[in-house]
Amino acid sequence: MTLPRIGITLGDPGGIGPEIVLKALAGKTSLPEAHYILFGSARFLDREEKALRTTLPLGGGQKKDGRGRTTLEIRDIPAPVGAGKRASSSAASGLASFRWFEAAVAAARRGELAAVVTAPISKASWALAGVRWKGHTEYLSKFYPGAIMAFWSDSLKVTLLSHHISLRKALARVKRDTLREFFVSLDRSLSGKGRGGFEFVVSGLNPHAGEAGLLGREEIDEVAPAIEDAKRCGLKISGPYPPDVVFRGAVGRANVFVIALYHDQGLIPFKLLAFDTGVNVSLGLPFVRTSPDHGTAFDIAGKNRADPRSLVEAIRLAAKLVPGSL
Amino acid sequence: MTLPRIGITLGDPGGIGPEIVLKALAGKTSLPEAHYILFGSARFLDREEKALRTTLPLGGGQKKDGRGRTTLEIRDIPAPVGAGKRASSSAASGLASFRWFEAAVAAARRGELAAVVTAPISKASWALAGVRWKGHTEYLSKFYPGAIMAFWSDSLKVTLLSHHISLRKALARVKRDTLREFFVSLDRSLSGKGRGGFEFVVSGLNPHAGEAGLLGREEIDEVAPAIEDAKRCGLKISGPYPPDVVFRGAVGRANVFVIALYHDQGLIPFKLLAFDTGVNVSLGLPFVRTSPDHGTAFDIAGKNRADPRSLVEAIRLAAKLVPGSL
Repeated sequence: MTLPRIGITLGDPGGIGPEIVLKALAGKTSLPEAHYILFGSARFLDREEKALRTTLPLGGGQKKDGRGRTTLEIRDIPAPVGAGKRASSSAASGLASFRWFEAAVAAARRGELAAVVTAPISKASWALAGVRWKGHTEYLSKFYPGAIMAFWSDSLKVTLLSHHISLRKALARVKRDTLREFFVSLDRSLSGKGRGGFEFVVSGLNPHAGEAGLLGREEIDEVAPAIEDAKRCGLKISGPYPPDVVFRGAVGRANVFVIALYHDQGLIPFKLLAFDTGVNVSLGLPFVRTSPDHGTAFDIAGKNRADPRSLVEAIRLAAKLVPGSL
Repeated sequence: MTLPRIGITLGDPGGIGPEIVLKALAGKTSLPEAHYILFGSARFLDREEKALRTTLPLGGGQKKDGRGRTTLEIRDIPAPVGAGKRASSSAASGLASFRWFEAAVAAARRGELAAVVTAPISKASWALAGVRWKGHTEYLSKFYPGAIMAFWSDSLKVTLLSHHISLRKALARVKRDTLREFFVSLDRSLSGKGRGGFEFVVSGLNPHAGEAGLLGREEIDEVAPAIEDAKRCGLKISGPYPPDVVFRGAVGRANVFVIALYHDQGLIPFKLLAFDTGVNVSLGLPFVRTSPDHGTAFDIAGKNRADPRSLVEAIRLAAKLVPGSL
């Protein structure tokens, strides 16, 4: 088996991104065997190495703990003057983190990477830099409008029918055709991953999943028919279930994905259960993209207090999800 | 201090209600000192006593483990013929449980009870019996239209701006005036309870609490102004906070109530964290009403497998919330 090529972006250089990337790559936690390609600036890596008194296994291209197989390569993309001011958003930092991400996505689109793992960027920095996209997901949607946002942890797996739109608009997205396309696309994007395949449980929209139409009709008119459509396409899918019990019922079931019908329906339970180790995954792309489920944490940037666990989990999951590896 | 008079209803006689009531009252778990008045049928108590091989400390009116103060009285309200068939809903059982509840509420309204604790009823049984109200809460709303539904546990306290209406209708309830009245009424109903008083944190409606209007304007136009109004009325209240982090932030903070803007926003996290010991509380009534946070559990009725813990917690909370006791 060839090792997968996994890109890692450094994130906002004023945040904890460079610190957790260095901790993950130079640390004692074992990472999957892979060819890692780091998209960032050598200058910030140097600074972080000095601050953390550690070094990346560069040059030789081999990690100390590897069996001579795992390699690490740096794509040095210089940052604009002024980037990397600790603990605050800035146009220069925003432009830097955007360029690194842009380069990683371009490499993945050319087929040079099987996966991209992104350290956290600052949306405020991107906005200051005049970047047109709000964040990673929005940029990816430019190329892949059907990209699916999912949240992955050992205890719970959740995916969202819609994400960064108002609840009012999210309600309007609950339509049979939209749902069916989402179900089928989700199933396809996970095909071949997970032993025995994944099972999908769909949350209702209304209290008690509408209680037979008494508390809203979307379950009867839209959700249930879409689930039937998806079953006819061969999916293992069921629902709609009452929103306030479906997540609890899925906890600990490794092959179950809960399909949430709007942002907070899925993220309230996910963040309660998996705040430290949860991983954000974009599905429905020709490559895998994962990221830790936290932000730039400007308040602790540069203090050697950042915890790389969620990034390590994101790297592990990326390696698991690349074709042919799970 | 005079002991509080606490009514307890038996719930649907085909479900686990009678079993958990008997287990709670005859069991080893210590209950608060109180005068307990049981609203139900002596027939079903007898049946349950035989099934569980235990007896209620009747007649003498004193609990064995009490210090000669706690008393227990039965209000025997005969059930219609056919009531109490195990493990299924029926018109007769529905009429029975409705009458018991109706009698307890009437007693509370006359000032004979400081609190009513309700064992679970079957909404299907009530419907079969032709009862006009869907459940306990709806019946109470007849007398007290401003009744507030809250969910109480050691780890998390949540209250709901709206409950059994569609999500679409719940959105329409998010208005400045409605919110302000709700905040003030909630604060008043908890006044004098909880050491140092309660602090309220308000969830937003949209993802990221609207992100400064980008993902919806309700936070700016309705929620934030209502919070400012409530502050001017002297409430300790803040928000709106992003829905996917506000619950996590409140966990373990005993004097914090999260105000959820719709049913599932509050109940998804509450049921995840407090499924076994959570208590449902109606606030804004002239008496206290609590109930366990589970249903009739027809599947295990009559099998001596029901866990009385949530009912015990409901009784304890009722005793804590009666005026002058917390």
